[in-house]
Amino acid sequence: MKRIASVIGLAPENRDEYEAYHAAVWPEVLQTITACNIRNYSIFRYGDLLFSYYEYVGDDYAADMAKMAEDPATQKWWAVQEPLQTRLPGTPEHEQWLPIAEVFHHD
Amino acid sequence: MKRIASVIGLAPENRDEYEAYHAAVWPEVLQTITACNIRNYSIFRYGDLLFSYYEYVGDDYAADMAKMAEDPATQKWWAVQEPLQTRLPGTPEHEQWLPIAEVFHHD
Repeated sequence: MKRIASVIGLAPENRDEYEAYHAAVWPEVLQTITACNIRNYSIFRYGDLLFSYYEYVGDDYAADMAKMAEDPATQKWWAVQEPLQTRLPGTPEHEQWLPIAEVFHHD
Repeated sequence: MKRIASVIGLAPENRDEYEAYHAAVWPEVLQTITACNIRNYSIFRYGDLLFSYYEYVGDDYAADMAKMAEDPATQKWWAVQEPLQTRLPGTPEHEQWLPIAEVFHHD
């Protein structure tokens, strides 16, 4: 299992809309997340910054991410969410979220 | 089980020292964390900001946190770490870390 944390910006004027969407994520999007071997997925907010944490339980992360990106419901979901989010400096090209490093872990 | 995320500042000049300590946390401190019903505990860093994520599996969080605060090794550990960290605006009095709200979760 691999723990993945990442961050993205959320402008104050988009906060309510983003949080309303995330309180009721489309079932097809959730099914795809599960099908792509992501578990225990949470997003937290600190001011204008979102912090994402999830656990990847598959054995080919790149392939599972490609599979996710091919899902039509997920594509529609991203098209709605991406304008609400603000990519942060250093975020890899073709990515939305910026991965951040783990400095401590204890099971 | 309750998921708890929180943030604290880490000045650039303290980064190396903080990360070196957290790559080799004292065993007594880890034992106390476990004894106080905390599981799956990670800390990540984004720039000068630390994100903490853990899962509380007990049934009296306040009592377990009080128990942790009474542990001599934990007190020594905190005395070393606290000067390296920077409490953020809005952090509850007598706390170091600022809890942040969950906006999404999917198991």
